[in-house]
Amino acid sequence: MAEIITAAMIVIGDEILSGRTKDRNIGHLADVMSAIGIDLKEVRIVADEEDDIVPAVNALRARYTYVFTTGGIGPTHDDITADSVSKAFGVPCEYDDRAYAMLEAHYATRGIEFTEARMRMARMPRGADHIDNPVSLAPGFRIGNVHVMAGVPAIFQAMLDNVVPTLKTGQKLLSAAIHCPFGEGVIGGPLGEIQKAHPDTIIGSYPKYLDGAFWTELVVRARTQETLDAAAAEVRAMVEALGPAKP
Amino acid sequence: MAEIITAAMIVIGDEILSGRTKDRNIGHLADVMSAIGIDLKEVRIVADEEDDIVPAVNALRARYTYVFTTGGIGPTHDDITADSVSKAFGVPCEYDDRAYAMLEAHYATRGIEFTEARMRMARMPRGADHIDNPVSLAPGFRIGNVHVMAGVPAIFQAMLDNVVPTLKTGQKLLSAAIHCPFGEGVIGGPLGEIQKAHPDTIIGSYPKYLDGAFWTELVVRARTQETLDAAAAEVRAMVEALGPAKP
Repeated sequence: MAEIITAAMIVIGDEILSGRTKDRNIGHLADVMSAIGIDLKEVRIVADEEDDIVPAVNALRARYTYVFTTGGIGPTHDDITADSVSKAFGVPCEYDDRAYAMLEAHYATRGIEFTEARMRMARMPRGADHIDNPVSLAPGFRIGNVHVMAGVPAIFQAMLDNVVPTLKTGQKLLSAAIHCPFGEGVIGGPLGEIQKAHPDTIIGSYPKYLDGAFWTELVVRARTQETLDAAAAEVRAMVEALGPAKP
Repeated sequence: MAEIITAAMIVIGDEILSGRTKDRNIGHLADVMSAIGIDLKEVRIVADEEDDIVPAVNALRARYTYVFTTGGIGPTHDDITADSVSKAFGVPCEYDDRAYAMLEAHYATRGIEFTEARMRMARMPRGADHIDNPVSLAPGFRIGNVHVMAGVPAIFQAMLDNVVPTLKTGQKLLSAAIHCPFGEGVIGGPLGEIQKAHPDTIIGSYPKYLDGAFWTELVVRARTQETLDAAAAEVRAMVEALGPAKP
């Protein structure tokens, strides 16, 4: 049996918690992880405060194969992700020679002053590796199993594309979705029996509500096709046995 | 000085972590909390597993004024929020007389069998109060400072509308947004100085990237109008002093 690879995400950003910005990175990471067979197990959204970031990094890096962070790597005073991740790992946060040289050359070419604020973007925990940023300039970084990336969705997505080939990927969780024209009350009992009979699957029931009527999306997940097919066939048979939904 | 009221949210749902469903409740709760002066400080998205839900509930209810959960209160086997919250509080999860009678009457009127699965929706921690559900039937519940609500956005929003009048609300965090036509590299230094000079404000810098150009939304937050105005004026002056963005 293939190893199960797990991941967690930390979204660092007051602007998400205040509602001013609506997160678009969680859904993207979830989709990518599902596609490559890594189980995203937990997400935390925390404020731009060291006392919130450090414990989240330490709790999650100990528990999961990989941790991905978004946000807080820019040049302003509220960008404290590099400092916080350094503190979590107990290493100094210092100028990275390669990042510093890259930023310095970039600004020199354009005749832009390389200010102290811009220099902040070259800071990372001692021992970190770069995560290339093909959209803007400042690199993200990886230290241990923690990958630190930008919060701007276009940049986060580009950085993640660079990270994915470096990850151990798991056996992809296969899934089958079954439309059920009834609400959960109708199917709860028999569905629970099918779950019990197929302990190697995860059967999820996702209620939907549209125009005053309930329907349910049933999703069977398993790591092998045979396991999936056996459970999905029973779920389909259960739905068919219920007949058409009442008008 | 008014009391600072804080909140955390727990989104319970494998379907969000798998990417199959994109969460729409976090942004809504964030907006509502901001509007009524409660600081949303942390969000966790956890799997439909007791071992994930119980520690999240206990960690967050101890730390924040209020906790709000979404998801996992339906009639299927994967709806384990009531059991998990009961366990977190160390109380039995049992049929609530009022919820049971309400569900029983509802199904009797419609000639629908009141199955064991449907009865599950009447279970809640001993000592919990109802949160009315004007959209479908099954109530949410409140125990201590934890409010348990549905995951379907229309139902979550309706339940939250019923919860808001019961909350202590804080002194609303006032905010002023200032458009800055420059990227963070240009403003990082001077903005940090303004933050240092105005410690009672929170100055956030949110980089935006559109069509190859960077701009920044600067947001000043404070609890009094005078404090806000003083810092916002300095930020505006800083942006104006930079002149128009280069084409």
